Order: sequence, then C-alpha cells, then structure tokens
Amino acid sequence: MAGQDADQRLALIKENLAEVLNEEIIKKVLDEGGHPKIYWGTATTGRPHCGYLVPAIKMAQFLAAGCELTVLLADIHGFLDNLKAPIELVMHRAEFYRHIITTLLGAVGVSTEKLKIVLGSSYQKSAEYVMDVYKMAAVISEHDAKKAGAEVVKQTDNAPLSGLLYPILQVLDEQYLDVDAQFGGVDQRKLFIAAKEWLPKVGYRERAHLMNPMVPGLHGGKMSSSDPDSKIDLLDAPDVVAKKIKKAHAAPQVVEDNGLLAFIEYVLLPAARLKGGEGFKVERERDGLPTLVYTDIEKVREDYKNDILTPQLIKPAITRDLSALLAPIQEAFKNSKEWQEIADKAYPPPPKKEKKVKNKGTRYPGAGAGAPAAKGEDAKELPIRNGDAAPAEAAAAP
Amino acid sequence: MAGQDADQRLALIKENLAEVLNEEIIKKVLDEGGHPKIYWGTATTGRPHCGYLVPAIKMAQFLAAGCELTVLLADIHGFLDNLKAPIELVMHRAEFYRHIITTLLGAVGVSTEKLKIVLGSSYQKSAEYVMDVYKMAAVISEHDAKKAGAEVVKQTDNAPLSGLLYPILQVLDEQYLDVDAQFGGVDQRKLFIAAKEWLPKVGYRERAHLMNPMVPGLHGGKMSSSDPDSKIDLLDAPDVVAKKIKKAHAAPQVVEDNGLLAFIEYVLLPAARLKGGEGFKVERERDGLPTLVYTDIEKVREDYKNDILTPQLIKPAITRDLSALLAPIQEAFKNSKEWQEIADKAYPPPPKKEKKVKNKGTRYPGAGAGAPAAKGEDAKELPIRNGDAAPAEAAAAP
Repeated sequence: MAGQDADQRLALIKENLAEVLNEEIIKKVLDEGGHPKIYWGTATTGRPHCGYLVPAIKMAQFLAAGCELTVLLADIHGFLDNLKAPIELVMHRAEFYRHIITTLLGAVGVSTEKLKIVLGSSYQKSAEYVMDVYKMAAVISEHDAKKAGAEVVKQTDNAPLSGLLYPILQVLDEQYLDVDAQFGGVDQRKLFIAAKEWLPKVGYRERAHLMNPMVPGLHGGKMSSSDPDSKIDLLDAPDVVAKKIKKAHAAPQVVEDNGLLAFIEYVLLPAARLKGGEGFKVERERDGLPTLVYTDIEKVREDYKNDILTPQLIKPAITRDLSALLAPIQEAFKNSKEWQEIADKAYPPPPKKEKKVKNKGTRYPGAGAGAPAAKGEDAKELPIRNGDAAPAEAAAAP
Repeated sequence: MAGQDADQRLALIKENLAEVLNEEIIKKVLDEGGHPKIYWGTATTGRPHCGYLVPAIKMAQFLAAGCELTVLLADIHGFLDNLKAPIELVMHRAEFYRHIITTLLGAVGVSTEKLKIVLGSSYQKSAEYVMDVYKMAAVISEHDAKKAGAEVVKQTDNAPLSGLLYPILQVLDEQYLDVDAQFGGVDQRKLFIAAKEWLPKVGYRERAHLMNPMVPGLHGGKMSSSDPDSKIDLLDAPDVVAKKIKKAHAAPQVVEDNGLLAFIEYVLLPAARLKGGEGFKVERERDGLPTLVYTDIEKVREDYKNDILTPQLIKPAITRDLSALLAPIQEAFKNSKEWQEIADKAYPPPPKKEKKVKNKGTRYPGAGAGAPAAKGEDAKELPIRNGDAAPAEAAAAP
C-alpha cells in the first residue's frame, strides 16, 4: 500500500469484482488510513488446484491494498462433508491447504505479513460460538435458512440438515473472525444478503461483502470434478500443465464464456500487475511477427475477436505464465520435507480395488511424477463454499 | 426397591405408561440387579404447575423401583424459546424448577438419593457435544428432522430453524446424560423413534423409551395456558386449590376424557400407593353414607358411570388429597428464604401497562397470597417438550 491513497486502495480491492455490498464499511476504514479486515473461507475437502488462483489473486490484491486477510480453513465442514474420512485425514488436508495458500500468495509477490490462516475447529466448538448458533437458529426461520443456502446447498428434501445449519455458521464466522468484510463468489450472494440481516438479529454489526464473478473453466463451462484432466494441480510440472492447457477447448473469435480469456483476465493480468511485470505477452516468432504485450483485457478481447489472437497463440503464453506462477510453489514444496510428508498423509494413494483396475489405468493419464493431483480421492464438490470452488475451476481442462 | 424382585420393579416402572420401546434394555439391567438410568427433560420456560404432578408421580415410581433418575432442566431451550428474557431470568427459573422438582418428589415419600438434576447448559455447549450436533446434522435429513419433531414442533415454513435442531439435541442428551432410557409423553413418540435410529448413526447405542399417555386436563380437554384459573400452581393455598377444582368441568357419568378421573388415576392413586396409604377416599357424611375407599381406577370408573360417584362428591376429595400433596412443598417453600428469593427473581411481577390496567384487574382473580402463580408471564407452550407440558395440564381448571 506504499504510496497508495484511500481511493487507489479501494479501486484495487474492488478490481474485477462482480459486486460489493456495503462498500461504505470498507471505505470508512480506508479513509481513516486503517486496514480493512477481510475473510475468505474454504472447506478443506478435496485438494486445491489451479482454480484457486482466481480467489487467490483477488486475495493477493487485498493484501497489496493493505488489508488484513483471514483465510478460514473450514475443517469441521470438511470433516462433516465426508464423515467416512478419519478426522486425521481432514487435519492433514487443512495443513496442506495452509502450505499451499501461504506459498501461493507469496508467489505473486505480496507480503503475507497481514495474512492469518485460521482453522474453523479453533473456535467453532467454543461455548460462545455454539450459544450463538443456537440463538441464531431460534431467530432464523427454516425458510430463510433454506433461501440463504439456495445456490450453494443442495435443495432436496433428503438433503442433510447440516445444509440449513451451515449458513448460520458461515454468517457467525464474520463475527468470530472479527472482520469487516467477507469475500466469496457471487453464488454466495443470497447467503451474504442473509448475513447482513441475521447478524444484527443476534446483536452483531453487519459486514461488507465482496463478490467475485463466476469465472468459466478453461474448457468454457462446468466440468466434471472427477476427470483428473480437467484440473491442473498446483504441483503439476510444466509439461503436465502444457498438456492440460493444450486440451482446453476454446472456439476462435468467441470471447463469451471463454475459459482461456477468463484466466488471462482474472489470473494472469492481475498477477503481472502485482509483480510489476509488463503484462501478458504473446510471442509470435514462428509467424515472424513481433510479440504482443497486453495490459488490459479489453485489448485481448478485441484481438481475439478479430482472430489476431488465436487459441493456438495464447495457449503457449498461458502455459508459460502459469508455469512461472507455479514454479515458486513447486520449489517450496520440493524444499519442504514437512510439506511433502503432509501431502502423503493428506492424499494417500487410493486402496487398490481389483474390480476397477482396468479403468484406473486410463483415468490418471496426466498424473506425472510431480503430479499426485486428483489421486486418492476425487475432489468433492464443496457443499457450502461452492462460490470459492467454482472459480477454482477456471484453470481446468479439457 | 426393598424386597422387590426384577419383575415387580419392571411392573412399577411400566405402571400407567402408554407404551415402552425396547423394554429389553431396562429388563436386562433389572435382571442383573442394577439401577436403570432414566431421564426426563423439561424446558425451563413458564412455571411448573400442578400438571407436573403427572410426570412427577411417574418419576417417583421410577425412583421407588430403584432407578437412577436424571431430570434435565433444559435451560438453553428455555432461553432460546424466549430470547427476549434475560439469561439471568432463565437461570433463576431453572433454580426454581430444581427446588420444585426435588421437593415434589420428596413429597410423595420416595428417596431422592438417586435423583440427579442436570442443567442443559452444563454440557450442551461443550466441544464434544457440539461436534456431535454438527455430525448428526450431517447424517440426518431435513425431512427426518422435521418428521421427528412433527408433533412437538410447529410445522410452518416460518417456524424457526431451531425446531429442526432441537430433536437432534434431545436425542444426543440420551448419550450425554448417560442413561438407559428416556421418559416423556406419548406425543414424543416420533422423536423417540428417531432417537433409536439416529444415535447408532453417530456411533452410540440406542436407548429404551418410556411414554406416558396424554392425560386430559381437569376441564376435560385442551385449555388456554393464558387463563390463570385453568392452572393450579404448586404453591397455591388450599382455598385457592378448592376454588379452582370447584370450577373444573366434569359431566356426571361420563368417564371418557374426564380430567377429574384422570387426575385420580395418574396422580392420586399412585401417590397413595407410594405413600403406603389406604387409597382414594370419598367421604359421603353429608348424605349419611359410609366413606368409599378406592385402590384401583376401574372401580372409580364403574361407580362414576353409575352415578354413585358424582363430580360434587369427588371434587372435595381431590381438593383434600391434592392440598395434602402440596402441603410439604409449600412448607419447604415457606422455610426456604433462598427459594423465596429465587421465586421473586424468576417470576418478577409484570411491569404495569397503563393501557391494560382495566383488564389486568380481572385477569388474576384467583391469585391469592400464597399464589404467585401465572403472574408475571403466562406460561408459554413448551415448543419441544410438549409431551411433558401436556400432562402438566391435567390439574387445571375450569
């Protein structure tokens, strides 16, 4: 935030967001020269992959704008979503997430001095918190709880009761993490609106809400989370990244719902700005043309529409920048015995199932030496923080 | 239990009950000469009145049969049901309940050595309990939670979410109170069935369930809880008791849904047996006839049908026995400065409302010196433990 005034800081906080609720709460802190406290939560199910770069870049911007950032590792949610998994596995995964997130934010060159990583279990079982859960359940109607979770919780009659309980927890987290704002995907909108209404009902102040847009995956839409090829692991080696990006579907000249362009817009361009780089470069040496350098997405879009930028041209450029972004993470992983051991415990190899051996052989074609990704267990859909999971699909293929 | 064998003890435990689920669990403990652990819960809303004698007599029988009895004072529920009441008020009420219940059980002459009174707040906020609440919410469907509470929780879309959460708490209480069985009204049946299914889902053993029938109020049906005349407070003086019983509606010769006969059956006859008395006596001196002495309800019913017993004859008899039953409670209250202070704090006089002064004057005609009953706040319908509240209406009038 060196040299930034309040307006510049606010602009950086809001950059690329789809919507902000109660912006005045953040503005007030900035006007006083303070550090707005923002939290982002993620259930520690599955395994963080390249899609996490979308919220991570946004969080890096918060840090760069002088915010205090709290990342909530919702381990209780993670545990509840997969009751069959032993609690130890969930704890290891939370540790894995901690390493990944810290390194990832460091990788784009922002200071993580104002980053706090908190385990849900560190306070969500406390007597005070629990009384507030009971209390809120007594003043919130079943109907409102359902509505709040409408887009992030399965809405069947057979859905577990926890789906109605989670919104209450997520709302109370704002109070217990002592933040000014919560950040999430725009699919959390109903829950965020509920948070505004619910907190004052139990005597707490309402918070601001920052929403990322829903960013399409590299393939240009929703994808199966059980297809390992559709996700690039944060520890995938450059050749694996190249292979997966190559498979990404992108129609020439079509900019709508284009996962490649979205990745440039929400990850590569802001990352370049954070690192003080020149922008997004597209080399055209093979065609004997000069390198293109983009600093804003509008120009990228325009050139793509006009077929100056083709999928064939931008895929290697994305591969190059993404691999560069991942390099420090992979370096840190390679140098941390502790992290490697946690990875082994958090994502143990799947037990061999005789019946499925034939299929297994072709289900993990992309899993190279550096790519334990998606092994063990397929990443589950996150039941409550889908908003965070959805942008997480941005970097996926094919 | 002196001199009782297992069969006799089981018979006493089951006496007057409408239904028992998993009787074998209790039988096993009895066969081994042990002390079956039974729990009964009540939300500490409102103020316990004469209707509490119905479950209390049953609990006295459990104690007489050598059971360990736990009374759960669900103060958290009480607090949640009336969030406007300060928490201190609820704590005072819980204390008031503790005094009443202990004295009440002592009043029928059973030893309260094996009686344990537990506040819900003493464990329902613990980390272990809460994790189990979360866990159970994750394995129980919204539909099943709704079904379990169908008869004891309001089933509107606008009902608070707590209505779906309470069944989970009540089920977990069986585990955390470490009992063999839960006792309640037959209106708790769906919840008890759920308890049998739900506890094993989170790794706990299923319990037995003991159900009291729904006992009609003295007026012969449902009554308004806001009519102070319809309830006899446990601290009502004999003249107030006489006045209220006099108003009780009872058609001559009709035994069905007859609140007076029900009170004899579920309170006075078993109380007489517990105290080793002769039975239920009806004096007919005025008519120059000998006193009738009943030891079983069938004979009472037969004589009532044949108009040998009339409402005019049994009302004074009920008044006499009920007042005798209440005498030691009132004696204890008179002798306990501490209890009196708690009563003042738990049921403070209502704030004067200018507008309603006219009505107020006639709303509490029965509240004599010894009758702080139903002042302050009208007893609320208990939202979850209706089963316990419903028999509590047994002694009400008119």
